[in-house]
Amino acid sequence: MTLASGEALAFDYLVVATGANPRPAGVQGEDLEGIFSLRNLADAIRIKTYIQARKVKKAVIVGAGFVSLEMCEAFRGLNLETTVVYRKELPMSKMGFEFGRKILAELEANGVHFMGNTEVRGFDRTSSGGLVIQTTNGPLETDLVLVALGVVPEVDLAKQSGIALGPTGAIAVDDQMRTSVPSIYSAGDCCECFHRISRKPTYLPLGDTANKQGRIAGANIGGQELSFPGVVGSICLKVFGLEVASTGLSPEEAAEVGLEATSVTVQGSSRARSYPSSGELWLRLVADAQQARLLGAQAVGSDGVVARINALAVALTGGLGLDQLAYVDLAYAPPFSGAWDPIHIAAQQLLK
Amino acid sequence: MTLASGEALAFDYLVVATGANPRPAGVQGEDLEGIFSLRNLADAIRIKTYIQARKVKKAVIVGAGFVSLEMCEAFRGLNLETTVVYRKELPMSKMGFEFGRKILAELEANGVHFMGNTEVRGFDRTSSGGLVIQTTNGPLETDLVLVALGVVPEVDLAKQSGIALGPTGAIAVDDQMRTSVPSIYSAGDCCECFHRISRKPTYLPLGDTANKQGRIAGANIGGQELSFPGVVGSICLKVFGLEVASTGLSPEEAAEVGLEATSVTVQGSSRARSYPSSGELWLRLVADAQQARLLGAQAVGSDGVVARINALAVALTGGLGLDQLAYVDLAYAPPFSGAWDPIHIAAQQLLK
Repeated sequence: MTLASGEALAFDYLVVATGANPRPAGVQGEDLEGIFSLRNLADAIRIKTYIQARKVKKAVIVGAGFVSLEMCEAFRGLNLETTVVYRKELPMSKMGFEFGRKILAELEANGVHFMGNTEVRGFDRTSSGGLVIQTTNGPLETDLVLVALGVVPEVDLAKQSGIALGPTGAIAVDDQMRTSVPSIYSAGDCCECFHRISRKPTYLPLGDTANKQGRIAGANIGGQELSFPGVVGSICLKVFGLEVASTGLSPEEAAEVGLEATSVTVQGSSRARSYPSSGELWLRLVADAQQARLLGAQAVGSDGVVARINALAVALTGGLGLDQLAYVDLAYAPPFSGAWDPIHIAAQQLLK
Repeated sequence: MTLASGEALAFDYLVVATGANPRPAGVQGEDLEGIFSLRNLADAIRIKTYIQARKVKKAVIVGAGFVSLEMCEAFRGLNLETTVVYRKELPMSKMGFEFGRKILAELEANGVHFMGNTEVRGFDRTSSGGLVIQTTNGPLETDLVLVALGVVPEVDLAKQSGIALGPTGAIAVDDQMRTSVPSIYSAGDCCECFHRISRKPTYLPLGDTANKQGRIAGANIGGQELSFPGVVGSICLKVFGLEVASTGLSPEEAAEVGLEATSVTVQGSSRARSYPSSGELWLRLVADAQQARLLGAQAVGSDGVVARINALAVALTGGLGLDQLAYVDLAYAPPFSGAWDPIHIAAQQLLK
């Protein structure tokens, strides 16, 4: 391996852990001062310092995924007038129409403006020193812009080194985190992972997966044969007071990989309805109707959402049938659930 | 079937759902006024009315299981001086020594007196109208006693009818909830259920299981062949601010059914440690060391405990190996967990 300094470094094993970069909006003016992306702690400090130094009052976030929705809370916590600009109709499009509307309602209840069906065309500076975002729905004046359009894997070094990329554009790895080049491993946001439900390589750059991949790579390099079993696509997010979580495939994702899916959404409660702090919870189960096999689940609600999705993530990993799920022995007490959990109710409805 | 009135009632199918009765202490004086058991809403109203009418200041609870610990909270909420008398050293003996001590600390932090290693010998009335409990650790004066020693199945009618009881003394049923007598089914707290981990009939009278059994019995009577897959022994409980939950077998229960078990206890956090409301959480995994197979899990902590136990209940149902559990794809975000969940950490420690 040759360093930028020209120095050569010999290795027995190499791990490519180059991570990912924020996806740019790809429009003119994106390098103007006051336009940020957020990838690491240094970015966060830069944004916070700018807000304080420039007495920022208004912020616009481009995109409506994880980073966008989490930053809405941070910006509103600093009393900024906050607007989200998104090319689709509703935030977190992966969650579907019904849940997207609940996320939108939570944003609006917390003072966030949401401009859906809106694309960004470019950025300009005003004569008074502010920023203008040109959008398909007209110009938008603001003090600060956060571009939060997800990430793209950093694969330049890998490509130059002849390491094969997978169908997603990230580095292809096997279950021991080996790349196509002998003695070179890869882990983290620069590489793919195997999706246990779609049975395809996928690009899901998440912190917990990166940790697992790093550990598996290290174990194998150290001589302990360990396989990464892959992911089922579990994600979660707090949007102000709303928990949002998903595992496995959404109906759209199932269709994309050629699985004929059916789904049901039930409205339940996070605890027994009679219990004082019980909240509303909506759970969607996605299944292969033919085989009565669970394919995925999405949920939103005030609490208990991630708990349900994690139980279902384990069910996906273990390949539980809907008939097992319909009567699975979850721990029951009124402070934690009703005697019939939304998981039972949804599975039973799918079996009808 | 003959009713008490002498009237005969013909049936095509019969469901025996006679439930269970509180287990008495079995000592003299148990029928004195002011000594209660708690099984249903009428009992609860009777207790509350008595407390108000007699201006009760002191209560003693005999036993330290579910009903006892939940009633501690109710009594302390009414400002009663509350004492628990229990024959074992620590409350909830099923949870083991380490977790029993945490439950005890939570009781004491909330003003409950705990008298462990103490057996009740009898009850008397004092000259001033109070109650005295004679114990192996001396007499105890109080205004009210709640006997909370669990329940015994109500099987008199079944026995008289020639319906077979199982090894636990409750009504034996198959997976369609049929008893030994054709056309007679049973469901709920009067009958046994199949424990998927011990592979033995067990007596675990819980509300959610009763609901499931009733539904299965009804479906089969109605002509839809449905099997009850059995239980894995999931339970949970809120003791003031502490969540307590268990699924599968404890090390002692594993030994009782002849399984050689190993276990590990990890101290983790309910959310990412950096997240403001994260609390401490202790998780014990019990496994068959030979086969790297999960046998059970117990946990206590301020929050997130039932969420972990339910994920593990599903893992038990799906027969996940420890190697799968060590890298299972749970949804991660700092408000809900660290990148490595206590489940991952405990499973990895068991694999070492």
